[in-house]
Amino acid sequence: MERPKDKLIACLETAFNPRSIALVGASNTFGKWGQLITSNIIAAGYRGKVFPVNPGYKEMFGLPVFARIANIPESVDLAFVITPANTVPGVLEECGDKGVKAAVVITSGFGETDQAGRDLEREIVKIGLEKGVYIIGPNTMGIISPYADLFATGSHSRPRKGSVAFISQSGNLGNQLTHWAEQQGIGLSLFVGSGNEAMITCTDYLEYLEQDPKTRIITLYLENVSQGVRFLETATRVNRTKPIIVLKGGRTEAERTAAASHTGSMSGDDAIFRGACRQAGIVNAGLPSELLTLSAAFSSLPLPKGNRVGIVTLGGGWGVVTADQCSDNGLTVPSIPDSIVEAIGLHLPPFWSRGNPVDLVGTRDPDAPIVAVEELIKWDGVDAIIVLGIVGRNEVVHTLLHSVQEADPDTSPELLGQIKEMSRNYEDTFISKMAEFMETYEKPIIGVSLTRTETGTVRPLPGRRYSGVYYQTPETAVSVLARMAAYHRDLAPNLK
Amino acid sequence: MERPKDKLIACLETAFNPRSIALVGASNTFGKWGQLITSNIIAAGYRGKVFPVNPGYKEMFGLPVFARIANIPESVDLAFVITPANTVPGVLEECGDKGVKAAVVITSGFGETDQAGRDLEREIVKIGLEKGVYIIGPNTMGIISPYADLFATGSHSRPRKGSVAFISQSGNLGNQLTHWAEQQGIGLSLFVGSGNEAMITCTDYLEYLEQDPKTRIITLYLENVSQGVRFLETATRVNRTKPIIVLKGGRTEAERTAAASHTGSMSGDDAIFRGACRQAGIVNAGLPSELLTLSAAFSSLPLPKGNRVGIVTLGGGWGVVTADQCSDNGLTVPSIPDSIVEAIGLHLPPFWSRGNPVDLVGTRDPDAPIVAVEELIKWDGVDAIIVLGIVGRNEVVHTLLHSVQEADPDTSPELLGQIKEMSRNYEDTFISKMAEFMETYEKPIIGVSLTRTETGTVRPLPGRRYSGVYYQTPETAVSVLARMAAYHRDLAPNLK
Repeated sequence: MERPKDKLIACLETAFNPRSIALVGASNTFGKWGQLITSNIIAAGYRGKVFPVNPGYKEMFGLPVFARIANIPESVDLAFVITPANTVPGVLEECGDKGVKAAVVITSGFGETDQAGRDLEREIVKIGLEKGVYIIGPNTMGIISPYADLFATGSHSRPRKGSVAFISQSGNLGNQLTHWAEQQGIGLSLFVGSGNEAMITCTDYLEYLEQDPKTRIITLYLENVSQGVRFLETATRVNRTKPIIVLKGGRTEAERTAAASHTGSMSGDDAIFRGACRQAGIVNAGLPSELLTLSAAFSSLPLPKGNRVGIVTLGGGWGVVTADQCSDNGLTVPSIPDSIVEAIGLHLPPFWSRGNPVDLVGTRDPDAPIVAVEELIKWDGVDAIIVLGIVGRNEVVHTLLHSVQEADPDTSPELLGQIKEMSRNYEDTFISKMAEFMETYEKPIIGVSLTRTETGTVRPLPGRRYSGVYYQTPETAVSVLARMAAYHRDLAPNLK
Repeated sequence: MERPKDKLIACLETAFNPRSIALVGASNTFGKWGQLITSNIIAAGYRGKVFPVNPGYKEMFGLPVFARIANIPESVDLAFVITPANTVPGVLEECGDKGVKAAVVITSGFGETDQAGRDLEREIVKIGLEKGVYIIGPNTMGIISPYADLFATGSHSRPRKGSVAFISQSGNLGNQLTHWAEQQGIGLSLFVGSGNEAMITCTDYLEYLEQDPKTRIITLYLENVSQGVRFLETATRVNRTKPIIVLKGGRTEAERTAAASHTGSMSGDDAIFRGACRQAGIVNAGLPSELLTLSAAFSSLPLPKGNRVGIVTLGGGWGVVTADQCSDNGLTVPSIPDSIVEAIGLHLPPFWSRGNPVDLVGTRDPDAPIVAVEELIKWDGVDAIIVLGIVGRNEVVHTLLHSVQEADPDTSPELLGQIKEMSRNYEDTFISKMAEFMETYEKPIIGVSLTRTETGTVRPLPGRRYSGVYYQTPETAVSVLARMAAYHRDLAPNLK
């Protein structure tokens, strides 16, 4: 006989990779939830079958619309429920009769509201259990399953395929973070807004992700955790093989009230929760933005095996600031031996800093940054490299070329075109070289672009084990590196 | 007789508002310093006269080129010196003979290098004093004087006119920060890369800015401070009327070495320096990015008169996170009286949070956010408002409209156009309404857009006393607000 855990995992596997979906409450009235979800799924190019269900329509988005689920002539793996709260029990009954495996209940007005809502929530759980329909939500903003090309949230963010799974108890926070993931180029294996977690809890999702081969990193935004002991036991186990990055919201008195009314249950004592996570070596994030920046690095770079950092910078001030940040975050910036000073010095004017940070004093020698990084990374005195201002310079060059052309309309367009191309090519070469070094030496290289690049934080490199990670500011690079070093220190014995 | 301080101020006034400039070492070879500075000045539309000086050219950028300064047929207020280090003494002699008031010495290779460089630096100071030429630098990346339309740095950033002056001892950090200021819409009154400060120190610039009517906020990036006592006395005095935001780089041992080789002098004991600043109520920034975020708020918003915060959020999760951040930063989120709960509740569904943070539960009622902010700001129980997700929603709507059109090509383009316009207009109305509230109640409203808006952090509002400030993340808003409250607490008795 199948154990419940295996059944749960099998059902979630179907829910996140459905061959067909029903959209109960689909609409084409702009701004309605039924329209937001349906149009997103269609526009994003979901490859399975889509069956809108709504008695008021015959057709929408060029698809036939069914009055009831029962009328759909084919089998349905997953249903989205977007009808008023009081109709949800009936819809779930029909889902069960149709053999639907799981339902994402977008509708709100359940446990997060009042006693009547809590009663209604208990009722739908009962129906789900009786009819064998697993319920995601209710009161969820939806799910994103990039490998199934299934983008089913109200906000139309389209993060790329990747290895980061993200479970959020807050829908609007989750929506924003998937939007940031898209902007920053962070690849997701899955996003689930877990909503009120009436039936499937964050611990259940962890158990699913533990065995999901596409997921290597797990990020969680939590406001309250039911069955705290089971959660911590599961998270501790999963974190040993797949780093878990968690943000616990609702730390203050005022906030416990806000969190309670927001998801319909009480948040636990945050200090105890965070302490327990820390003990388990789970990565505590302090801010939503950190969930992203940490995910980018953990999913793209090798872990540092210690806290010693080599810094390579195009200009002195940023080296100073970065070394200060290392010191504030428990990382060290060791002095480098004469042999390395000499090797790097071959590419720099005589008055360079002759130390770590390596200040490239604005050199235009294209080999200098690459030699500096290689000399540092192959030295056993550092565990990680931070490199500032090389990637990102491209955008400075573009601004410059535009301005130069304004100053002197006679400037040769061929020359400007060549410079533009050279600059872009150099950036690509550099990023690819850094990935090669990471593979050879198994040490992370974190980049700082110093500018808001259009290309995002993560630069995927097909065929390479690691990707480029280029943050805008040194503080982000340093803080992320410190967390990675701590994770390695606590968990290294368990990692393969 | 003119006192030296008055003479310094008069000379700097001329340097930052010159009627004519000479560019000694001007070039049109792409990438040379002489070309970067010259093309920037011309492309940015400086309105005074520009005289390139270079014996190797007859004409460049459509302008006649002079072999020597002496050949320029008109008077010259300011010279930029971009020739090799060993020629600089001679050039400065010629500047003196021509009656040039001040020289920006871009050239490096002075005190930041070796003993010969230090000797050369002493020599140019001697010449400057003898000949009455004030020297900015040497080893500076240049200056920006937006009100004179003078953009004279190697990076072609063009921040708008405003009230923030920025003095940086690091050129490359300064360049990057002026670039960020441009991106974020922060208006500058002046930028000076002070370089090696051979003759004019950061304290001198402070004295100039103290009396400069265009400057209301002063930001400093310092690595080392000569005459520490004089600096602190001056900064303490100036800070009473014009908030000073300072970042001190070079805090670690490794970094003191890096900072020394970078600007040619030793940095002081950072802990003592920061302690002294704190005692004087000067705003210590921990990071370069904070220099920008703090400048944006200090220059655009009224100061909060206490630490009690009202939070208005479009969705619950972000309210939770923001209240947590307030708690971590020494701000409180007080409970609101029933009368306010009732007034706001008229615009919200019955299951809203009924407290502070005010969770608008994703309402589309356009009045709800405005009513919520007004009810909170007029209450004497809060000193400041943070509002999340209203401004920024516009970009979400755009993504959505694009996606909807993909899903259903039959969607009426008129309808989509109307929605787009409504959304944009609402954002403008909201920002303007917030500025009106700030004027009426003299309390700051800090916005969080949650997205990377193209319009920047600061939204200037012609005719209004205050501007809109919309950061991407709540942590930025909260941390800035906490600094403003601390500044008010320490300095309020002195402010007009």
